[in-house]
Amino acid sequence: MSNEEPAPELGVGMIGYAFMGAAHSQAWRTAGRVFDLPLRVRMAAVCGRDQERVTAAAARLGWAAAETDWRALIARDDVQLVDICTPGDSHAEIAIAALEAGKHVLCEKPLANTVAEAEAMVAAARAAASRGRLAMVGFNYRRVPALAYARQLIAEGRLGTLRHVRVTYLQDWITDPDFPLVWRLRKEHAGSGALGDLGAHIVDLAQHLAGEPLTGVSALTETFVRERPLPAASAGLAASGGTGRGAVTVDDAALFTGRFGSGAVASFEASRFASGRKNALSIELNGARGSLAFDLERLNELSFHDHTEPAVTAGFRRILVTEPEHPYLDAWWPPGHGLGYEHTFVHQARDLVHAVAAGEQPSPSFADGLQVQRVLAAVEESAAKNSAFTPVA
Amino acid sequence: MSNEEPAPELGVGMIGYAFMGAAHSQAWRTAGRVFDLPLRVRMAAVCGRDQERVTAAAARLGWAAAETDWRALIARDDVQLVDICTPGDSHAEIAIAALEAGKHVLCEKPLANTVAEAEAMVAAARAAASRGRLAMVGFNYRRVPALAYARQLIAEGRLGTLRHVRVTYLQDWITDPDFPLVWRLRKEHAGSGALGDLGAHIVDLAQHLAGEPLTGVSALTETFVRERPLPAASAGLAASGGTGRGAVTVDDAALFTGRFGSGAVASFEASRFASGRKNALSIELNGARGSLAFDLERLNELSFHDHTEPAVTAGFRRILVTEPEHPYLDAWWPPGHGLGYEHTFVHQARDLVHAVAAGEQPSPSFADGLQVQRVLAAVEESAAKNSAFTPVA
Amino acid sequence: MSNEEPAPELGVGMIGYAFMGAAHSQAWRTAGRVFDLPLRVRMAAVCGRDQERVTAAAARLGWAAAETDWRALIARDDVQLVDICTPGDSHAEIAIAALEAGKHVLCEKPLANTVAEAEAMVAAARAAASRGRLAMVGFNYRRVPALAYARQLIAEGRLGTLRHVRVTYLQDWITDPDFPLVWRLRKEHAGSGALGDLGAHIVDLAQHLAGEPLTGVSALTETFVRERPLPAASAGLAASGGTGRGAVTVDDAALFTGRFGSGAVASFEASRFASGRKNALSIELNGARGSLAFDLERLNELSFHDHTEPAVTAGFRRILVTEPEHPYLDAWWPPGHGLGYEHTFVHQARDLVHAVAAGEQPSPSFADGLQVQRVLAAVEESAAKNSAFTPVA
Amino acid sequence: MSNEEPAPELGVGMIGYAFMGAAHSQAWRTAGRVFDLPLRVRMAAVCGRDQERVTAAAARLGWAAAETDWRALIARDDVQLVDICTPGDSHAEIAIAALEAGKHVLCEKPLANTVAEAEAMVAAARAAASRGRLAMVGFNYRRVPALAYARQLIAEGRLGTLRHVRVTYLQDWITDPDFPLVWRLRKEHAGSGALGDLGAHIVDLAQHLAGEPLTGVSALTETFVRERPLPAASAGLAASGGTGRGAVTVDDAALFTGRFGSGAVASFEASRFASGRKNALSIELNGARGSLAFDLERLNELSFHDHTEPAVTAGFRRILVTEPEHPYLDAWWPPGHGLGYEHTFVHQARDLVHAVAAGEQPSPSFADGLQVQRVLAAVEESAAKNSAFTPVA
Repeated sequence: MSNEEPAPELGVGMIGYAFMGAAHSQAWRTAGRVFDLPLRVRMAAVCGRDQERVTAAAARLGWAAAETDWRALIARDDVQLVDICTPGDSHAEIAIAALEAGKHVLCEKPLANTVAEAEAMVAAARAAASRGRLAMVGFNYRRVPALAYARQLIAEGRLGTLRHVRVTYLQDWITDPDFPLVWRLRKEHAGSGALGDLGAHIVDLAQHLAGEPLTGVSALTETFVRERPLPAASAGLAASGGTGRGAVTVDDAALFTGRFGSGAVASFEASRFASGRKNALSIELNGARGSLAFDLERLNELSFHDHTEPAVTAGFRRILVTEPEHPYLDAWWPPGHGLGYEHTFVHQARDLVHAVAAGEQPSPSFADGLQVQRVLAAVEESAAKNSAFTPVA
Repeated sequence: MSNEEPAPELGVGMIGYAFMGAAHSQAWRTAGRVFDLPLRVRMAAVCGRDQERVTAAAARLGWAAAETDWRALIARDDVQLVDICTPGDSHAEIAIAALEAGKHVLCEKPLANTVAEAEAMVAAARAAASRGRLAMVGFNYRRVPALAYARQLIAEGRLGTLRHVRVTYLQDWITDPDFPLVWRLRKEHAGSGALGDLGAHIVDLAQHLAGEPLTGVSALTETFVRERPLPAASAGLAASGGTGRGAVTVDDAALFTGRFGSGAVASFEASRFASGRKNALSIELNGARGSLAFDLERLNELSFHDHTEPAVTAGFRRILVTEPEHPYLDAWWPPGHGLGYEHTFVHQARDLVHAVAAGEQPSPSFADGLQVQRVLAAVEESAAKNSAFTPVA
Repeated sequence: MSNEEPAPELGVGMIGYAFMGAAHSQAWRTAGRVFDLPLRVRMAAVCGRDQERVTAAAARLGWAAAETDWRALIARDDVQLVDICTPGDSHAEIAIAALEAGKHVLCEKPLANTVAEAEAMVAAARAAASRGRLAMVGFNYRRVPALAYARQLIAEGRLGTLRHVRVTYLQDWITDPDFPLVWRLRKEHAGSGALGDLGAHIVDLAQHLAGEPLTGVSALTETFVRERPLPAASAGLAASGGTGRGAVTVDDAALFTGRFGSGAVASFEASRFASGRKNALSIELNGARGSLAFDLERLNELSFHDHTEPAVTAGFRRILVTEPEHPYLDAWWPPGHGLGYEHTFVHQARDLVHAVAAGEQPSPSFADGLQVQRVLAAVEESAAKNSAFTPVA
Repeated sequence: MSNEEPAPELGVGMIGYAFMGAAHSQAWRTAGRVFDLPLRVRMAAVCGRDQERVTAAAARLGWAAAETDWRALIARDDVQLVDICTPGDSHAEIAIAALEAGKHVLCEKPLANTVAEAEAMVAAARAAASRGRLAMVGFNYRRVPALAYARQLIAEGRLGTLRHVRVTYLQDWITDPDFPLVWRLRKEHAGSGALGDLGAHIVDLAQHLAGEPLTGVSALTETFVRERPLPAASAGLAASGGTGRGAVTVDDAALFTGRFGSGAVASFEASRFASGRKNALSIELNGARGSLAFDLERLNELSFHDHTEPAVTAGFRRILVTEPEHPYLDAWWPPGHGLGYEHTFVHQARDLVHAVAAGEQPSPSFADGLQVQRVLAAVEESAAKNSAFTPVA
C-alpha cells in the first residue's frame, strides 16, 4: 500500500465467538495485513451472552470491546458492518434488525432455518440496498482458491455443456451412538441436520459452479441413531424427557438427485456417518469439453481434464492452485506453499470490504442464500413425499 | 498338480467371440495353467453366425471347433458347459435351451433384458439344478481380488452396521454427439443404456458386498444426446428413419438412491458422459466400525479405514491386494506384481469349474441375476413415475 | 485464557520484511490469538534499509515502529527478542550482536553461510544462555503438525530400527534460462544454491526425525544454466560483468547419500530444476517395524505403514493430521479443516514464547543449525573431491 | 488374422520353470492369441533338473515336452528359440551354447553376474547375428505400456533437455532378520543383492528412457542383516558353516548417483528393506519442457507435466495408458480396462517374434545388457572405493 492518505475505517461488530466467530476473527485480523484493502478494518466489538466469557473472547480474539446484547452491538456508532456467527435460528431477527439500523451485514450460512425467514431477510436486504447497505451470506467455500478458479474455468467454457454435477460432503463425528444430543441434533435449533449444515454448502457450490439454479430434486433422508444421551449441562433440550436420553429430531444423512434447467443432472450426499471421512467435500463436474474434480481435504489442488485434447495425452491434471495468477494467490506465498481452511474467510472478508467500498452487491447475496434454502426445503418435501421429484419453488 | 491320474475333462462351448468372448477365451485358456483345477478344461467349440469369421476366431482364440448355429453347439456331445457371450436379448432363449439340453451354463451379465426373461431363466436353472446342472451369471467384478477381499472383511464384521453404500460407474465413450447409433444405444437390443450395462454391475456389487438386497429405489435417468448418426453398415437399426440419423432409445445416465433392509442407504450413478472417466467404477461403504473404498481404475488396491482404532493413528490405508493370503493371489505373482481386468474372468472360470466338480451352486446364481434385474426394473419404474420411491419386487 | 492478571509482555523486533518477514509477522500477530501463551507478544519494531518502505511495511504488517538500522533495533528497550529474516550473509553479525545485547534471538535458516560463522553464533548462544538469553534457528518445517507427529511416532519406536531415510525437495522456479541472476544465484550472498536453500531444510528434517546426526555424505552438485541475464536494477551483482549476463556461482541441484551412526542410510536431492514440482518436499523413512511418508504439497496428511500388522490388512494409511490429539491441533479447527504453510511459523512462535517464559532452550538450537551447516559443508567438500565419502566434522 | 496360409512355426524351448518360467509360459501361450504374429509360436519343450517336477511343469504350463539337460533342449530340432529363465550364474554358458548351436536366445535379466561373462555373451551374440541368429535380454519393464509410451514422449522431445532422472525400486521381503539365507542372498549364485536384482531394472530403464548411457556413478551399499538362518533344505549353501546360520554376502540396499553425457544427473535406490513397499519401482524424469512420473504399483498410469503450458492450468496429468493409440493397447481391452504385471512378458514375446520374423535385432540387445552390467560393476567399484565417482567402463 503506497497510499499517502490512510484509508477510511470500516468498523466491524461480530455476534457469536465460537468456532465460526474464531474463524471470522482470524479473517478480520488478517485481511488488511495481506491484501490491499480500500477500507481499514476496525474490529470494534464482539457480542455474546455471558459477560465474563465475551470479555475474555474480545481480548483473545482482538476485538476492542465486548457487548452482551446484540441490539446494543448493532446500535454502536463505531460499527458499520455486523457479522453474524450465531446458530441459524437467530439469523433472521438479527440480520433484519442490523440492516434496518443501517448496517452492512455478513451472515453465516445457512441463511436461515426456514424459507419464510430467508424471504424476510431478502426483503430486508433489498430495502437496505436502496439505502446503500449491503448483505452477504457466508458460503465461504466459494473462496477456496481452487474452487474460485474452477468457477473461472467453467465461465470461460472450458467444460462446455454441463452433463453431471456430483457432490458429497461427508463427516463422521456422530457415528458413536453415545455421542450426546447437542443442539445441532435438534430441529428447533438447527433447522435440519446434515442437510442444512453440510447440504447447504454443496447445494450452493453446485449452483455457483454450474452457474444456474437447480430446478427440482428427489430426496431421501435418514436418521440412523434416533435417541442419544442428553449433554451434561443442557438436559432441558430433550423434548421427549426420560432419564438422560432424548430424541434426535434432524437427519443424519441426506441423499438427493436434481436437475438443472440446462439439462445437466446432479447428485448430492451429505452425511455425518461416513466413518473415516472428516471434512470430505468432494465435487466433480463433467461437461462435453472437460471435467473438474475437487476434494476439500486437499484444498490446494484442482483436477482438470481437458476433453478436447488427444486421448493419448489426456488425463486429469492436478493443478496446484498456488500460482500468483490464481484467485487471491498474488497476496500470499510462493507457488507450492499452500493455504488452509481459514483462508476462505480471509478472502471472504477481503471481497466484502471491496464491495462495501465500491457500493456493489457482494456475492453470494441473501437472494443466493434464499435459493439454497428453497432447494433444502424441496429436499425435505421430497423426502416426506416418498422421494417424488419436487420442483424448487 | 501332483495328481497321478489326469483330471476328468470339462468341455466348454462358447457363443459369441467379440469383446466378452475374447476375455472369456483368455480365461478358459489360462485357468488350468495357473490354478489347480479338479477338471481339465477343453475348449471344444465356439459359435458365431459368420462361418469364415467364427472359424478364424476359433483358430485365434484357441477353440477346437467352430459352429454357426448355437443350437448345434448346445447339441455337441463334447460340450458340457455353455458360455453365453452374446448381447442380452438372446440370453434367455440360449440359456434355457442349454440347461434343458443338460448343459451347465455361464451367462454374461445382465442376465436378461427384462424381468420376465430373467424369471424364466431362474425357473430353468432351478429345474436343471435338480438334474445336477448348474447356472452362473457373469458378474465378474465380484472376483477382482480387492473386492473379493472386501467381501471377506465385511462378512467378518470389520465394517459393523452398514450405514452408506456409494457407487458410481463412469465412462465417456459417447460424449461426442457424432458417435454413431450402435446397438447398445437401442432399447430393442440392449434393453437399457448405462443402466443395464454399468448399473447392473454396481447394483450387483452393492448387494453382494452389503450382503443383502436393496428394498427400494428412487431414480432419475437422462438421455443427453437424443439423435445420432446411423452406423455405416446398419442403417436398418434406425426406427425413426430419416437420412442418416436415428433416435437414441436408451438412457445415457442413470442416478438413483436406495435402501437396504438393514437401514443402510445407498446412492448409484451410471453414466457414459463423464468426460475423462474411462472405466471408473468407484465404491465406498461406511459402517459403524469401518469403511472401505475401491476404484476399478486401480484394481489392485483396497482402501480400508478401521474406525475402532484411536483417531490419532486412524486413516484410510491402501492395501495392495497382492499378498498370497488374499483371494486368488497364491496362484499368481509375488506381492506387488499386480493383476489386470482380464484376471476377473480367470477367477470366474476357476470358481465355476470347482463348483461343477463339486456339484455345488456357483455364485452369483441366476437368482442373483434376477434380483439385479428387479432392481433395474424398479429404477426404470421410479424414473417413469417422477422418481417416486419404488419397492423392488 | 482464564488468567486474571494479564501475562507479561514480550517485545519482538524483526529485521527484514520480505517473504520471510511477512510469514513471521503473520505468526507474531496470530500466535497469541490462537494459543494460550505465557507472555503477551508485542510487535515492537521492524527494521529495513529503506525508510519509506519499512514504514509502509510496519503499517501493513502490524509493527508499532520502524527502524532503518538493525543496531538501533537491537538497542531498543522495548525489544526483548530479535527475529532475523535477512539473507544468510548477515545472520552471524546480527545474531551475535543481539545476543550480546541481551536479547533472545530467532534466526532464519540456514543459520549462516559458512561453518565458521555458525560456530561463532553457537559460541555466542552458549555465552548468552548462561545469562538467560535464548537462541533458536527457524527450521519451520519441524512444526508442520504431520511432521511433528511423525517425530512422536518415531520416538515411540513405531518404526523400530531405522534403515532408510529418503528425502527430496524439488522446485522449478529457475528452469527458464532467461530467469534473471537474482541474489540467490550468487555465492557471495546466498552461500550456496539449492543446497543451502532447500538442502538445509531436508538435512535438518532427516536428522530431526531420525533422532541422530548424519556421520558422512557423498555428493554431486550441478549448475545446469551457468550464465543468466542480470536483473534489471542490480547489474552490480554480476562479478563477471559483460553486457547484461553474469555467471551463476551456486548449484542448481545437489544430490547426496549419507549414513547415520545407527547404520541407516539416507538419500537427498535438492533441485530448482524439477519442472512441475513447486514446493515438493517429500520424505520417507523405512524402519524394521514401520514406515512413514510425507509430502509438503499435502501437508495435512501423514502416511504410516505399520509393519507389525498382518500383511493381509497392512498398507500405508493416510492419517489426516487434524485431530485435537495431534500436535498444535487442539487450538485450531475441527478435524478435516486443514492448515497451510504459514501455520508452521505460528507454531514456531508459540513454542519459542513458551521456551522464553520457561527459560528453557528452544529447539532447534543454534547447535542444531551448526550441525546442518557442517553437513552442507561436507556435501560441498565431497562434491569437490569427486564424490568421495566425507565425514561430517 | 485374415492370413489364408498359416504362419510358419517358431519352436520355443525354455530353461527354468519357477517364477520367471511361469511368467514366460503365460506370455508364450498368450502372445499369438492376442496379437497378430508373423510366426506361430510352438511351445516345444521345457527344461529342469528334476525329471518328475519338470514333467509336471510341462503339463501344467503347456509345454509339449520336458528335458532334464539344457544341452539336450538346445539340441532339439524343434527348438529355434531358447528362452533362459535360470539364475544369473548360468546365463553365459547356456546363452553362448544356444547361440553357437544356431538358436535365437531370450535371456532373463541381469544378463550375467559379471562383466566378463556379459562381454563373452555379447561376442557370441555378434557372431550369431552374422549367421542370422538373434539375442535379446529380458528387461520386461520397458514393455509396460506406460513406460513404452513414456519413451515415445521423450523421443518426441516433450521433456526437452533432460535435467533429472530419479528412480527407486523398493521391496520389503527380507526385513525380518529370521528370513532364511536363500540363494539370492549369496554372492556366488546371485552375483549381488538388491543391486543386480532391482538395480539392474532401474539402470536399464533410466538409460532406455533417457536415450543415453550413464557415464559414471558414485555409490554406497549396505547389508543391514549380515547373518541369517540357513534354509531348511540347503544348509550346504552356507560358506561360513556354523550351526544353522550363515553369512549374507550380498547387499541389502544400494544407493547411487550418476551422470549422463548430456549433463543430466540421476539418483538411484534399490532396497529390500523398505517396509510396506512391495514392488515399488518409481521413476521421475524432469526436463526443460516437461516431466514424467511412473509407479509400477499403478502400472496403467503415467503422470505427465507439460512445462510449456501456462502455469495457471499446468499440472501433472494422470494419463490412463489404456487407449488404443497407446503401445500394445489396440490388441487388448477397451479404455480403462487395465493390464497387469504379466502383460509385459506378452509384449516382450510379441516383439521378439516380430524381430525374429523380420531378421532384425530385438531391443534390448545383449549389448544393452552388458551396458547395464558395466554400470552395476562401476557401482560396486565406487562403493568399494569410498563412494568415489567411478566412470562406467
